[in-house]
Amino acid sequence: SVNPDLASERQTASFSVERLTALLDGGAEQTRIRRAVVEAIESDPVFSRENQYFQTQNERYEAAVRKAVHLQKKMHEMGWTENGPEYKYIYRALSGDVAFLLHRVFMRSISVLGSDKQIAKWIPLATQHKLIGSYAQTELGHGTYLQGLETTAVFDTATQEFILNTPKISAMKWWPGDMGRSATHTVVFAQLYIHEKCYGIHPFIVQIRSLQDHSLCPGITAGDIGPKMNFEHIDNGYLLLKNVRIPRENMLSKFCEVRPDGTYVRQGSQKINYFTMTTVRISLISDEVLTPLMKACTIAIRYSVVRRQSKLKPGEQEAKILDYQTQQEKLLPQLAAAYAFYFTNDYLQELFNRGYREIQRKNFDMLPELHALSSGFKAVITQHCTAGVEICLRACGGHGYSLLSGLPSLYTKILASCIYEGENTILLLQTARFLIKCFMAASAGQPVPPSVTYLAAVKHGKCPAKNKLDFLSPDIYIEAYQHVAVRLTSNTAAKLQDLIQSGVKKHDAWNQCTVQLVQAAKAHCHYIAVKNFAETVEKLETKAGIQKIMKHLCDLFALHGIFSNTGAFLHDGYTSAAQMDMVTASYLDLLAVIRKDAVPLVDAFDFTDKSLNSALGSYDGHVYQRLYEWAQRSPTNQMSPAYERYLKPLLHNTLSKL
Amino acid sequence: SVNPDLASERQTASFSVERLTALLDGGAEQTRIRRAVVEAIESDPVFSRENQYFQTQNERYEAAVRKAVHLQKKMHEMGWTENGPEYKYIYRALSGDVAFLLHRVFMRSISVLGSDKQIAKWIPLATQHKLIGSYAQTELGHGTYLQGLETTAVFDTATQEFILNTPKISAMKWWPGDMGRSATHTVVFAQLYIHEKCYGIHPFIVQIRSLQDHSLCPGITAGDIGPKMNFEHIDNGYLLLKNVRIPRENMLSKFCEVRPDGTYVRQGSQKINYFTMTTVRISLISDEVLTPLMKACTIAIRYSVVRRQSKLKPGEQEAKILDYQTQQEKLLPQLAAAYAFYFTNDYLQELFNRGYREIQRKNFDMLPELHALSSGFKAVITQHCTAGVEICLRACGGHGYSLLSGLPSLYTKILASCIYEGENTILLLQTARFLIKCFMAASAGQPVPPSVTYLAAVKHGKCPAKNKLDFLSPDIYIEAYQHVAVRLTSNTAAKLQDLIQSGVKKHDAWNQCTVQLVQAAKAHCHYIAVKNFAETVEKLETKAGIQKIMKHLCDLFALHGIFSNTGAFLHDGYTSAAQMDMVTASYLDLLAVIRKDAVPLVDAFDFTDKSLNSALGSYDGHVYQRLYEWAQRSPTNQMSPAYERYLKPLLHNTLSKL
Repeated sequence: SVNPDLASERQTASFSVERLTALLDGGAEQTRIRRAVVEAIESDPVFSRENQYFQTQNERYEAAVRKAVHLQKKMHEMGWTENGPEYKYIYRALSGDVAFLLHRVFMRSISVLGSDKQIAKWIPLATQHKLIGSYAQTELGHGTYLQGLETTAVFDTATQEFILNTPKISAMKWWPGDMGRSATHTVVFAQLYIHEKCYGIHPFIVQIRSLQDHSLCPGITAGDIGPKMNFEHIDNGYLLLKNVRIPRENMLSKFCEVRPDGTYVRQGSQKINYFTMTTVRISLISDEVLTPLMKACTIAIRYSVVRRQSKLKPGEQEAKILDYQTQQEKLLPQLAAAYAFYFTNDYLQELFNRGYREIQRKNFDMLPELHALSSGFKAVITQHCTAGVEICLRACGGHGYSLLSGLPSLYTKILASCIYEGENTILLLQTARFLIKCFMAASAGQPVPPSVTYLAAVKHGKCPAKNKLDFLSPDIYIEAYQHVAVRLTSNTAAKLQDLIQSGVKKHDAWNQCTVQLVQAAKAHCHYIAVKNFAETVEKLETKAGIQKIMKHLCDLFALHGIFSNTGAFLHDGYTSAAQMDMVTASYLDLLAVIRKDAVPLVDAFDFTDKSLNSALGSYDGHVYQRLYEWAQRSPTNQMSPAYERYLKPLLHNTLSKL
Repeated sequence: SVNPDLASERQTASFSVERLTALLDGGAEQTRIRRAVVEAIESDPVFSRENQYFQTQNERYEAAVRKAVHLQKKMHEMGWTENGPEYKYIYRALSGDVAFLLHRVFMRSISVLGSDKQIAKWIPLATQHKLIGSYAQTELGHGTYLQGLETTAVFDTATQEFILNTPKISAMKWWPGDMGRSATHTVVFAQLYIHEKCYGIHPFIVQIRSLQDHSLCPGITAGDIGPKMNFEHIDNGYLLLKNVRIPRENMLSKFCEVRPDGTYVRQGSQKINYFTMTTVRISLISDEVLTPLMKACTIAIRYSVVRRQSKLKPGEQEAKILDYQTQQEKLLPQLAAAYAFYFTNDYLQELFNRGYREIQRKNFDMLPELHALSSGFKAVITQHCTAGVEICLRACGGHGYSLLSGLPSLYTKILASCIYEGENTILLLQTARFLIKCFMAASAGQPVPPSVTYLAAVKHGKCPAKNKLDFLSPDIYIEAYQHVAVRLTSNTAAKLQDLIQSGVKKHDAWNQCTVQLVQAAKAHCHYIAVKNFAETVEKLETKAGIQKIMKHLCDLFALHGIFSNTGAFLHDGYTSAAQMDMVTASYLDLLAVIRKDAVPLVDAFDFTDKSLNSALGSYDGHVYQRLYEWAQRSPTNQMSPAYERYLKPLLHNTLSKL
């Protein structure tokens, strides 16, 4: 039976939930396949996550390894292959709670960076799990700045080997997943030295553990880096290399080769490497960033119609907390953002596919734009979604703070996405560099990539809105976002030029503009997200109420962005104070409109209770029972030695000297 | 030896660190006492927190109980008493990692709500630890809305007892600290029924566990609510009551009494109760909110001068990350906020002391203002400091994400302060209610409390600043903050009246204004914080460079607030776009100025390495060694059964069916 407070929310849905789910999945057939994968995974007790919140880091690691091994069996059993349509749903169905994710990165790096011969040797070994791979790039002292890596690989012509070393503590590899306890092999990034000349960073395949008994290989010191804010299931590791010798053939040599005599040969284009980073940044958005926000919205919104607290009207029953404007203002913009970025992700995927086709034709023209967009959106989406999950958590009050709500672990996990695969500030500055370059080019009448042509058309007009309803017109708000993005980019470009003209050195000038450059990059991404959402809505079918509710969400996303950042829009008078009051009025009106469909809108995400793993977010809404039953199973309800040891002597006054 | 990158920062301090520390402590003598307490606690291995990040919830609980019991012994040994000057430093020295905190709340509630007879009976028992107390107010279904509590206490005239019951699951007590496993007694808040008439919420002393063997008393079901985002050391508990009978004397009866015949008598003023909540809200700011932010700043700023990454200038060594403007922009405003709110806390303490003196003279006039300020500042400071700790964490990149940095646990703990002792949104709306009331009164020419007299003086002028240096004048920015606070309050009051006049019911109108009411309440508190910081700086001694650096921090706090919220200042044209550009310029200039003193400014907080418990924040700055050594001690570096069970069969291809 469903909690009546939740059931009533579903009865009044203005649209077909099933159709919206299919839309998000990319068709009803995809929905069917996804559900079949979820069903197969969730009905298998080995994949259960129900004790997750009670487990230690060691227990989590062990379970993740067990799951990874069992998954091989499961895939075989179910006939799922890496190229099949089910594959992309497996990770989501497991909620990422599985080991050996770096094994895939190990394989990909060999496929991308290795010669045909290397691919032929290593990929079958990896596929058959005759080894477990990792990827050792980051060092204790070096993250974002790859050129600064300190690990060395010295070529010894006498033995035809590379000698790998960790020259100092800051050069220790640190963070690589699967490396702390599992991996037998890893790809080590090191400074290549031949005849005492440094050739920069190159990748080397290094065996770190015995294939017989898993003991560490000679010269290898490795282990686990210890507790983290989340990712307890992953054995992020450290690695120290001391005169570790590997054969010449172990340097991945698609692009660079060291000949037996020590001759260094560079071959082919490395541009494809940048494309790899782009791939990773785009691919993480869906599973690691959007899914957690969608789950958090589901949990918090369902809870907010079941939780009743205080009275809205004297004499009435206590009100559902979602009926309070402040609660709507916390949660509904997060819901709108989840949809907005879902569609942004589609946009990026499409752009990426187009880029990939071009690259296969040896046309690398799209790379700078792709790099700028994938960097900027990785930063903006991870930042926005992380903040969104935190808002959802807080909006559930005390119960949100219990691990059993599922929200704390969603938060502590998504937070990492702001840091890994490029720290967000660094990424935004890369986007900003692209923007400034394009702005300069556009100003000089040169052609620029499609996503930034708008920079050429600086208009000094005013927002034409006359009443609050005008702000529900996408043309009006898209134009406003565009105006802000242009203004921030052009103003910062001007500041940069002024500084340089006044004698400040170029790099100092850049540093003095970085706070504003970050703002410009964010504004650019925000503008594109709003524009893309509006364009997506326009193309939707009008049937089954889908387009109408998506239009409301698009408006909310756009107006929330203006409402939360009024200064950017007011600054040069493009938007007047009176217009800003209209934005506020329309924004607050929209909250009340979308509130009515809030539960159906999260239902459409189609998460099962097992995938939410939350006492607050279940489909049936029986929150209190679930919290109580779950808490009783906690190890903290087992007998503690604290009573006999400390409490009894205290209460019985038998503590010595007291 | 100190890391030279850190040592160089200390050599150029523009002020005396020791003098600033004494200023923060309230005098050199206080500093001496505090250090003695810290030294005594930290040199005692029982109080060690060095394994904290490796421990399970059960281990944390046990250690906290052990510490609480040992503390009794320690205090006796050291001659510390509850009224001595050392007492207030003990909790900080323990970093709050100790059990029985609710025992003190139990005692305080008896002292405040109990009759003289009850105090005489229970307080000595509690003081001598012949019982362990807790405080059971919150229920599964009821937090902020006390009148909604559902636990019942029915008076039985025949036996002269109250019969306590949990009528349904939402009425179960949930969250009380020390109740899950430790407490023998608790104060239960329940709806009092006499002859079937309900008299509302009253407090009752209930024994829940045997004093002999600690087993649960008849009719009691109790246990631990399980894992939380932090507070693993506290046994937050649940409690179900089934026909639990307690004597008539166990209802705390300073203000209300039930006579033997069932007559209900109300006596004295309950106003003091509100004062108790005020006390708690103010008292938590220092230890639970400011200290974590100060620690986070210390960790992140020290790390940021030791961490070098990428190059600022081509050809040079990699730069300290604190030299990047974006890193300054993340951390230095948090540092300024820590100082700002430190002085706000002094202001609130002073106000509170004054209020207390008045109340002792039976003058309750200050209560509404005190309630409004303590509520608003509790919300604003917890919100601001929580966000600040998160920024510090993220600013340390991957290493910040390791539990060993100390930052994750600071964050997960401070986050709770946004929820407990009044959920922040609810509190801000209470402040807003006071503001609207006072604004109406002021507009009608009636007298209002001192902190809101400014609401009467609505000025429609413009900001007089002519260049960026003008924005370093407190008069200029205080006036701007005041203007915004008045505008937001008066506009929202007007909207409220308009709605009501247009026929919207009063409670609906209020709900429709709550998003803006929250903004007004925040603006009010922000204004007072800025004003108070500036006034504090003005009174400081000019010697030893203290006043100068504090002035910079005050300016930064004020300008960061404007820079982050430009819309509020631009909205009605009080500040022009040109002036906003001056604010931005001055703000960015200040970052570079304060950056030079960043390390001395956190050194002045005077945290020991043990109290920071951080691999990144140590006084000597040897970050990488500490991370490495610490990680090696992690339980995740012990032998795992995962190899024999799963990895070996996988690698040796002996998994069945594969």
